Amino acid sequence: MHEIKPRSVRSDRPFKVQIGVMFESAEVGEKLDKATFAAKSPAVRSALLDAQDRLQESDLAVIIVIAGAEGAGKGETVNFLLNWLDVRFVETHAIGTPSEEEIDRPRPYRFWRRLPPKGKIGIFFGSWYTQPIVDRIEGAIDDAPFDRSMHKIVEFERMLVSEGTLLLKYWLHITKKQQRNNFKKLEDNPDTSWRVTPKDWELHKTYRRFVEVSSRAIRQTSSGHAPWDIIEATDKRYRHMTVAKNLVQAINHRLDAPKLTAPEPQPLPVPAGKNIINSLDLSQALTRKEYNHQLQKQQGKLGRLSREMTRAHCSAVLIFEGPDASGKGGCIRRVVQALDARFYQVISVAAPTDEELARPYLWRFWRTLPRRGHCCIYDRSWYGRVLVERLEGLCRPEDWGRAYAEINAFEEELADFGMVVLKFWLATSEDVQLERFKEREATGYKRYKITAEDWRNREKWNAYEAAACDVIERTSTELAPWNLIEANDKLFARIKVLTKICDSLQDAFDKQRRTVRKKR
Amino acid sequence: MHEIKPRSVRSDRPFKVQIGVMFESAEVGEKLDKATFAAKSPAVRSALLDAQDRLQESDLAVIIVIAGAEGAGKGETVNFLLNWLDVRFVETHAIGTPSEEEIDRPRPYRFWRRLPPKGKIGIFFGSWYTQPIVDRIEGAIDDAPFDRSMHKIVEFERMLVSEGTLLLKYWLHITKKQQRNNFKKLEDNPDTSWRVTPKDWELHKTYRRFVEVSSRAIRQTSSGHAPWDIIEATDKRYRHMTVAKNLVQAINHRLDAPKLTAPEPQPLPVPAGKNIINSLDLSQALTRKEYNHQLQKQQGKLGRLSREMTRAHCSAVLIFEGPDASGKGGCIRRVVQALDARFYQVISVAAPTDEELARPYLWRFWRTLPRRGHCCIYDRSWYGRVLVERLEGLCRPEDWGRAYAEINAFEEELADFGMVVLKFWLATSEDVQLERFKEREATGYKRYKITAEDWRNREKWNAYEAAACDVIERTSTELAPWNLIEANDKLFARIKVLTKICDSLQDAFDKQRRTVRKKR
Repeated sequence: MHEIKPRSVRSDRPFKVQIGVMFESAEVGEKLDKATFAAKSPAVRSALLDAQDRLQESDLAVIIVIAGAEGAGKGETVNFLLNWLDVRFVETHAIGTPSEEEIDRPRPYRFWRRLPPKGKIGIFFGSWYTQPIVDRIEGAIDDAPFDRSMHKIVEFERMLVSEGTLLLKYWLHITKKQQRNNFKKLEDNPDTSWRVTPKDWELHKTYRRFVEVSSRAIRQTSSGHAPWDIIEATDKRYRHMTVAKNLVQAINHRLDAPKLTAPEPQPLPVPAGKNIINSLDLSQALTRKEYNHQLQKQQGKLGRLSREMTRAHCSAVLIFEGPDASGKGGCIRRVVQALDARFYQVISVAAPTDEELARPYLWRFWRTLPRRGHCCIYDRSWYGRVLVERLEGLCRPEDWGRAYAEINAFEEELADFGMVVLKFWLATSEDVQLERFKEREATGYKRYKITAEDWRNREKWNAYEAAACDVIERTSTELAPWNLIEANDKLFARIKVLTKICDSLQDAFDKQRRTVRKKR
Repeated sequence: MHEIKPRSVRSDRPFKVQIGVMFESAEVGEKLDKATFAAKSPAVRSALLDAQDRLQESDLAVIIVIAGAEGAGKGETVNFLLNWLDVRFVETHAIGTPSEEEIDRPRPYRFWRRLPPKGKIGIFFGSWYTQPIVDRIEGAIDDAPFDRSMHKIVEFERMLVSEGTLLLKYWLHITKKQQRNNFKKLEDNPDTSWRVTPKDWELHKTYRRFVEVSSRAIRQTSSGHAPWDIIEATDKRYRHMTVAKNLVQAINHRLDAPKLTAPEPQPLPVPAGKNIINSLDLSQALTRKEYNHQLQKQQGKLGRLSREMTRAHCSAVLIFEGPDASGKGGCIRRVVQALDARFYQVISVAAPTDEELARPYLWRFWRTLPRRGHCCIYDRSWYGRVLVERLEGLCRPEDWGRAYAEINAFEEELADFGMVVLKFWLATSEDVQLERFKEREATGYKRYKITAEDWRNREKWNAYEAAACDVIERTSTELAPWNLIEANDKLFARIKVLTKICDSLQDAFDKQRRTVRKKR
């Protein structure tokens, strides 16, 4: 275990008060005797099943986070809940060591992949809180990164709640003395002695430190949308009954609340006279000869870089957006020509499946993220939320309104993980689109690309451009900027995309090399 | 590398003839010059995209397996296909080392999880053939287990095809001399030299052995439903054009074939006068006192055994079937009371999602299989195919007809992997069901369990019993026998289930211990 650095204890407040404020209400000695528990049980249990029944019919997902000190009875509480609930509609997730497949992706992946669908309850013991708290206690991270983790959690939880999740967080509190007693009790019973490890006793020694870090976590993440319930955990019956009653109440309360209005068509956005897209010089073009020369050069370079990426266990996502017939498919084809099939996957984003619709919007993208050493190329992407879904009224204004920040947070996770995130906006003029539509209808093997819907979308050209300007303005971050590609000339567009990818990958490698050198 | 044992070479046939028969048609020196290739390309490419377009609209999934010797251009061929296909509807799977999550489950899991949905093409390079062939070449397995693997593959592929997959298998063939030339050519180019490993040169030395084992594999698995196409792979253009043309033809041919008839109601089965279910002595019962005593005893035992399982990295699946209100939920509850929440997951099988409907029937169960050291409890299961789907006419008679064998093969995979497979059939009489329905309607927290559908199902009691008898007769294998539970008395049923689980787990452990001892 790392040495705990005293500088991280806030010195402006006496220690006692700091932890007392948070937990004192959970140290009053609440108890429930056997008879009272037995008398109350049938009614609460029945109410719980009724609530779960209502839940199944609803479009609400419930997530229960069970946290607290070792020995506070987290596992016991989950077992208790599973005993009272209809387990057929519950998914339990004990979050332990991440698997290889999880380690190869950004940290939240392991939580995203476990999000319960609408109508179900997901119980997490061990959660997104565990790692930051452990890291902070062991001194692996400082206050600043810890606070940053907590801030990210607040945003993650806000997203969950906005997307139709009831998030319930229970913190089971025991005092240091009770922890020691519980460990001893477990050790004395041959059936449970295996549960107490030397690590637990080590943690016991740092109990105060645990409480301090936990207080900080709870304070920062007890948000309006997902407050913590701190539960006095010493008495098993009291703890269980409290959680059960709280759960019934919370589910019913949420289901009694007025339902959100369904999405409906909204006024379409109007583009500013001069904007970042229509100011592009779309006349830029390449001769076929120059194109052929550049294509070979850039594809060769990309091929070499992609092999280096595989060897360096680097991952990348390439995102292509732009109006219909702006040449996304053609660009993607020239990119993958340079790549080995083992290295990449192309994801074409169309209508979500029902499993995807039953979970928060970004779930469908988290599940496709590439492993280390691999690359994912998106033909349309998560930006559908703030483009087609916005324009077609498929989600409510507040939904796409918050999506910009959610997307930025998502891409930040990818970039923080070391993934290269490259976004391309292919811009064409309205008349070039018309030309290409007509050409496609005339060409045999391009016919499949043009549908009635494409013609309909064309009518919203201006609104689409306005929405696109909002996208570029609000999501062109320093970690994942938009690359605007003048795409009236396909040859020019393809070479610009290829060159940009090569330069960015090269930059990423150089940066990585510098970092490695510094660390040495 | 293991030493190759000469005894495994079939001595009754001269070696030359054996391999000649298979591959001689792919050693005739087929070539395609650049001009012909260029002239043919636009038409074939266009036809390929048209075929893919038709495919998207259909309920057909396509799987392409690319196999053959190292250096035959498997990767190159996949890259070529991806260049001509619309990659947005293709999933590429390079099958390399299995991940932890895959190693923790039966071998076919990694292929099942990658099955493409209807309307898409899945390209596998590296496939279910790779491991058995490598194992046989290296002498890790003998002819008998190799043949068994091939037999399993035939059955797996038959299932895929029956479930609406077009399975295309291309074997790229080169001679030993060409292999050496290709390796040298790759090594000479600095961009490709990394592809040739010392392992490849080792394999080159055993080329004849490779051809011998491959011939055996091809011969045994070139079935009517999924024959191999052996393609002369020396000339790149010939190889690519041949695969592309074959692919177009195969997709169109399959889509031109008359569509299968939709499922429709079939005559219901009629039970024999005396059968295995109605011969059960349903009067068996326990007193509450005896029940309480046994419950505590068996749950304690189960708790200990489940902890041993976790430590021994053993996994188990428990399957509960039986008519409505036969007490499946109650049994499951008594089982999980003894278990730690970290150890098990309860899966309640209801209507499939659209992602599940787009893939072979068993896909939804493969995706839920527990990892080593974990347990999955199914409240209803894959037997739905031959029970509710059969009775309600949700699948065609040939579909449920072949399901018995598919299910037996599935459970054999689980058992072979060392998973404990326990199946419980809970039998009640018709009047006890009626009693329980009425009781449920009267009880608050059991109300949710009884629906109009349950009353409707009751009308098919006899047909259900007949279908159940078929299930028990055809799927009670020595690896995964059905345990018939007399369930008119709930207390008796629960104790019988718990006892059976404990005994089976204990047996499994004892057996494991004996095997370990023998190996030493």
